[in-house]
Amino acid sequence: MLVGELINASRSSIARAIEAGDREAILAAAQSQADAGVDFIDVNAGVFVGREAEYLRWLVEAVQSEAPLACCLDSPDPDALAAALGVHRGTPMINSISMESERLNGLLPLIAGTDFKVIALCMSDAGMPVSADDRLTVADDLINTLVRNGVALENIYVDPLVQPVSLDGNFGAAFLDAVREIMIRFEGVHTICGLSNISYGLPGRRLLNRLFAVMAVANGLDGLILDPLDPRMMAFVTAAATLAGRDEFCENYLNAFRGGKLDV
Amino acid sequence: MLVGELINASRSSIARAIEAGDREAILAAAQSQADAGVDFIDVNAGVFVGREAEYLRWLVEAVQSEAPLACCLDSPDPDALAAALGVHRGTPMINSISMESERLNGLLPLIAGTDFKVIALCMSDAGMPVSADDRLTVADDLINTLVRNGVALENIYVDPLVQPVSLDGNFGAAFLDAVREIMIRFEGVHTICGLSNISYGLPGRRLLNRLFAVMAVANGLDGLILDPLDPRMMAFVTAAATLAGRDEFCENYLNAFRGGKLDV
Repeated sequence: MLVGELINASRSSIARAIEAGDREAILAAAQSQADAGVDFIDVNAGVFVGREAEYLRWLVEAVQSEAPLACCLDSPDPDALAAALGVHRGTPMINSISMESERLNGLLPLIAGTDFKVIALCMSDAGMPVSADDRLTVADDLINTLVRNGVALENIYVDPLVQPVSLDGNFGAAFLDAVREIMIRFEGVHTICGLSNISYGLPGRRLLNRLFAVMAVANGLDGLILDPLDPRMMAFVTAAATLAGRDEFCENYLNAFRGGKLDV
Repeated sequence: MLVGELINASRSSIARAIEAGDREAILAAAQSQADAGVDFIDVNAGVFVGREAEYLRWLVEAVQSEAPLACCLDSPDPDALAAALGVHRGTPMINSISMESERLNGLLPLIAGTDFKVIALCMSDAGMPVSADDRLTVADDLINTLVRNGVALENIYVDPLVQPVSLDGNFGAAFLDAVREIMIRFEGVHTICGLSNISYGLPGRRLLNRLFAVMAVANGLDGLILDPLDPRMMAFVTAAATLAGRDEFCENYLNAFRGGKLDV
């Protein structure tokens, strides 16, 4: 399950398009990601304090102005999500709920009993997780809370939270261990993550991000929030799924090869 | 721990050099691999039936003719290994012993009580392993047999045997699971593998080989038999060790970056 991360107002081209009301630019950014094969288009207007709800809703309208491309609504703010949900067509993804009390209590009413896909971030009032066990504890709480509130297990995408290896050399391994354990312990649940935090503070970030994606797929991760216009990232993820035994008869790999998508 | 795989008589340039007695060509192939950072130079003359012992010994002499570069003596034949051991200077690696009765009984007398590094291939008289459990059973037998015969645990490099994902989609995952379990259960032992079998029968083999190396390192593998002159492979292995928490303060990664070795 792939989520395209490019429509984020922290990118200056997107911020300019939002401020200029340039619907065509947003639509083009959405369409190019959909063409590259993503399942959801992430939309994030978080940098516009005070106008996030208005802009997030406008982003959804812009993304869906030609076809009902599914959006991943990326905000911790219940008002912004409610505004975006009011116009979204089809089944959205919510990015993200967590065990932080304020976020949990704010978002649960919007999510309870729906068939939305939900990213469940392994954060709690205790702060950022350090070890794999920290992540498993929060994942357990989150999954139980969501299921009790009428969210189906198969709509939950646990994000164990990638942190920079430059801050602690064990952060990568702790994340990978957590992914493996979550996929074994909570059969039916999914896992997902963004990648760029892993390489924070280091040179050669794209190489690290791509290879960490390969490692995470090897450990059972079945969702990624990524730049789908990075052909190497896409080729690596395709090949990783094949190597990890998740591509029957190597069919996706062979199709990608025939389509010239592995020539990177 | 890296073993350079290029001096193998199955490669036509090496076979020609052997037949021509071209010591300079072999020395150059050894030196370039040593310069690229390998710890052992694999030497294999297996294609020359009847002359393997003579040629393997000559290869060792050629590789060590200027400096005592350590060799990985690659043969299942006790006579060929004995001939090579007769001239090898320093501590060699043996590639490889297994639980196949004939190979085990032939090689154990050469290895018992030595400080050689030994590759222990997960093969037995029962044939090729299929599952991770098959590999663990043979690994257990091999490790116990070697330790009982005076080989130190830290000199054993278990090779769980890479098999093609094109033959069975689960072969990659079974290998990776076996690596993880071996490194947990037999603390102090090492794991190693060659990579190219994983991609047998598929296009884009170098991509698959490189990414499988990344996955194996993520699962704890600490030895690789590889082409050290493939700059992408070397960059990927360096970055993978960093991401897996095996590069304190990211020092190797940052050195590789400064040396231009990650610019691939």
